[in-house]
Amino acid sequence: MSDVINETHDPRLKSGVPCNLADSWSFPVQNLPFGRFTTRQHLSPRLGVAIGDFVLDLKEAVLRGLFERRVASLISSCSDGWLNSLMSQDVSLIRELRLALSIMLRGDVVNDRVASCLVKRTEATLHKPVDIRNFSDFFTSIHHAQNSGKLKRPDNPLLPNFHTLPVAYHGRASTVCVDGTPVRRPCGQFLLPGKVHPTFGPTRALDLECELASYVGSGNMLGQPIRLAEAEQRLFGFSILNDWSARDIQNWESTPLGPFLAKSFQSTVSPWVVTLEALAPFRVAPASRTPDAPRMLTYLHDTNDRARGGLDIQFEVSILSDLMKNKKLAPHPIAKPKFRDQYWTVFQMLAHQTSNGCTVIPGDLLGSGTVSGSTEAELGCLLEMTRGGTLPVSLPTGEQRTYLQDGDELSITAGCHKEGFVSIGFGNCRGSIKPAVH
Amino acid sequence: MSDVINETHDPRLKSGVPCNLADSWSFPVQNLPFGRFTTRQHLSPRLGVAIGDFVLDLKEAVLRGLFERRVASLISSCSDGWLNSLMSQDVSLIRELRLALSIMLRGDVVNDRVASCLVKRTEATLHKPVDIRNFSDFFTSIHHAQNSGKLKRPDNPLLPNFHTLPVAYHGRASTVCVDGTPVRRPCGQFLLPGKVHPTFGPTRALDLECELASYVGSGNMLGQPIRLAEAEQRLFGFSILNDWSARDIQNWESTPLGPFLAKSFQSTVSPWVVTLEALAPFRVAPASRTPDAPRMLTYLHDTNDRARGGLDIQFEVSILSDLMKNKKLAPHPIAKPKFRDQYWTVFQMLAHQTSNGCTVIPGDLLGSGTVSGSTEAELGCLLEMTRGGTLPVSLPTGEQRTYLQDGDELSITAGCHKEGFVSIGFGNCRGSIKPAVH
Repeated sequence: MSDVINETHDPRLKSGVPCNLADSWSFPVQNLPFGRFTTRQHLSPRLGVAIGDFVLDLKEAVLRGLFERRVASLISSCSDGWLNSLMSQDVSLIRELRLALSIMLRGDVVNDRVASCLVKRTEATLHKPVDIRNFSDFFTSIHHAQNSGKLKRPDNPLLPNFHTLPVAYHGRASTVCVDGTPVRRPCGQFLLPGKVHPTFGPTRALDLECELASYVGSGNMLGQPIRLAEAEQRLFGFSILNDWSARDIQNWESTPLGPFLAKSFQSTVSPWVVTLEALAPFRVAPASRTPDAPRMLTYLHDTNDRARGGLDIQFEVSILSDLMKNKKLAPHPIAKPKFRDQYWTVFQMLAHQTSNGCTVIPGDLLGSGTVSGSTEAELGCLLEMTRGGTLPVSLPTGEQRTYLQDGDELSITAGCHKEGFVSIGFGNCRGSIKPAVH
Repeated sequence: MSDVINETHDPRLKSGVPCNLADSWSFPVQNLPFGRFTTRQHLSPRLGVAIGDFVLDLKEAVLRGLFERRVASLISSCSDGWLNSLMSQDVSLIRELRLALSIMLRGDVVNDRVASCLVKRTEATLHKPVDIRNFSDFFTSIHHAQNSGKLKRPDNPLLPNFHTLPVAYHGRASTVCVDGTPVRRPCGQFLLPGKVHPTFGPTRALDLECELASYVGSGNMLGQPIRLAEAEQRLFGFSILNDWSARDIQNWESTPLGPFLAKSFQSTVSPWVVTLEALAPFRVAPASRTPDAPRMLTYLHDTNDRARGGLDIQFEVSILSDLMKNKKLAPHPIAKPKFRDQYWTVFQMLAHQTSNGCTVIPGDLLGSGTVSGSTEAELGCLLEMTRGGTLPVSLPTGEQRTYLQDGDELSITAGCHKEGFVSIGFGNCRGSIKPAVH
């Protein structure tokens, strides 16, 4: 099972590579996330593993005979440079690969053959790791649901279906980009105050949404649901997701069929995929059900999920305005949501997604929806932080923000920390806002 | 321009092949739709063109030197057997291909070299023609919007955004199947009458939605909208789409984020893609705007679209129950909606989809939403025909249907007919309902 702690999580293991970069702590030998990179020598993307300040070039490692046959042929089967082929493999093989990597990269110093397969992270360009064919976005935080619901229905913020299913809609797979891709302010239709007819123009309410991306491993056949108890074997790993949203466009377009252009202009994922196995030490019970919630329907309930379906991942959302950049200020943290507060688990999301027989395929993306907690400091989007754009957030320069302005750089990082274990991180998910074209 | 009538539409052209099958009329030499097929000899899918009772094997035609160099290399570039590569090509090249096919297949009889590239349609298995990466489903019929809105809001059926934009949501690309694929009744959550908490089980309100599928040709860059005036160059062609829907699941899950599992279990497309050029004789003005509608925003308005943006396509929806099959009865027509009644055009759909900078790529599917007209005989789904499941439809056996039952075969056909032109057809889009697995 993916939630069993084994020798790859041992806190005594040291990473046999230098760790000087500020976020080196994210990628100890206990993490070993997968990504996709190019270098000046290798212009077509290849798979890599983050370790300290370096990227292990998996193709090179196979060429140099660093893996035994089964693992080597697993990696060679991913010759198109996407993570999807790896994700589609049997969980036990992926575990073998992780163990081999752990053994290869642990110790005081790696051997010369391994060292020759390492690329400095600063010399690698990281790409979108997964060829995402289908993107579903969920709505699994009760705090986000209440806070955003309150803006529309002050007396009745939470709809009854929130308690019975992880609400979701389909997002746009074609515009999922990797960390660092600029975000062009979208145009769309929205109502100006006091108007009856909409205007078309650049959004005035550009927001972020701090989310966790879950990637499907092996898929299912049409008409064959993935049961909750199997879901654990079918999620390959996770990254950070920013589901940029234009709130004014969303308000005008979303009834009756849900958000469309308010979300489809762009979403951003972080470049490293942290495996479910790496998260084993950080598995927790998910948030408690509220006392008024009806009993969960059988297909969304099992005791293992109740005991260990939660993930203790801490996010940090920061903003860096143009003025802050000019003043050489550091990014300013505006929120620190915790994933363990989510009401529905990632496994319930997958079980629900396929409960009607819908197929998922390797690399499909399930977004968690905005991650928000119960306190002011844990709200995962500006809509919540600013009460629908009415209470601005202050920046260290004295600037204020209701929604994002052109030039703002928004960054989301995430990590897992637990007494007795080595912390692991997800890296960064950034985007700078560029002016609209219209 | 794709709406210009040229020699390929000439009604005097005869198809140089036998036409005996019942739907041979659909595929005269004036149509020339593209598809993807296998035979007992050729097990990997290849591209074909429907002509009378036959399929022209494009690969074979290239091998036998039937095309000049430019067209031959165009076809050879589609070696993966999907239509997408063809769709991505420049419109002028696709027009050259159509002209070459027209010249090759017209006349009293085709020559022997051409004849040797023809496969009997009864000996070909037709596959899903397009590798669909993204599926958006629109809501462009004012009659459908009014009829379905009335069930929820009798006094206010039409929401204000209906007049200002073609409302849409993202559908599930992974479950789009081809004509003939069985449809497994999905399970999901729904409220039983008088209950407060939902039940999980097989849907009791399985519906069809008669739609037109538009396929994107060449795509756009992130952040670069496709203008309405360019949209004509960016839609490759069309097929029939049945967007199967579970109305009870939809009712429970859809607020606030729109339909999800109520639609994602399956959608069905017909196997032939009729090009925009083939439809030139059937271009019409779209439905008039209602008098109370606000002026259209500039990005959704141009005079050419107003004059010729509509498509005069006639659908026929039929049902064949198990009992009807046993009695050897023919499928029973239950609706004949006309696409010319749609309020928004397919070109407006594409302009709107990309107006926020969202990318589309070759083969992306834009569903029109249910095609419904103003009369009883022109309603494109059972929700409308039965007033939300309250007034059953009668079959020739005396059976009644509010929604679809296991064993029912639902079929949608479509064609274009106009005085002075040869009629062309889209073929068939069928699915038989199989019992739920749960």
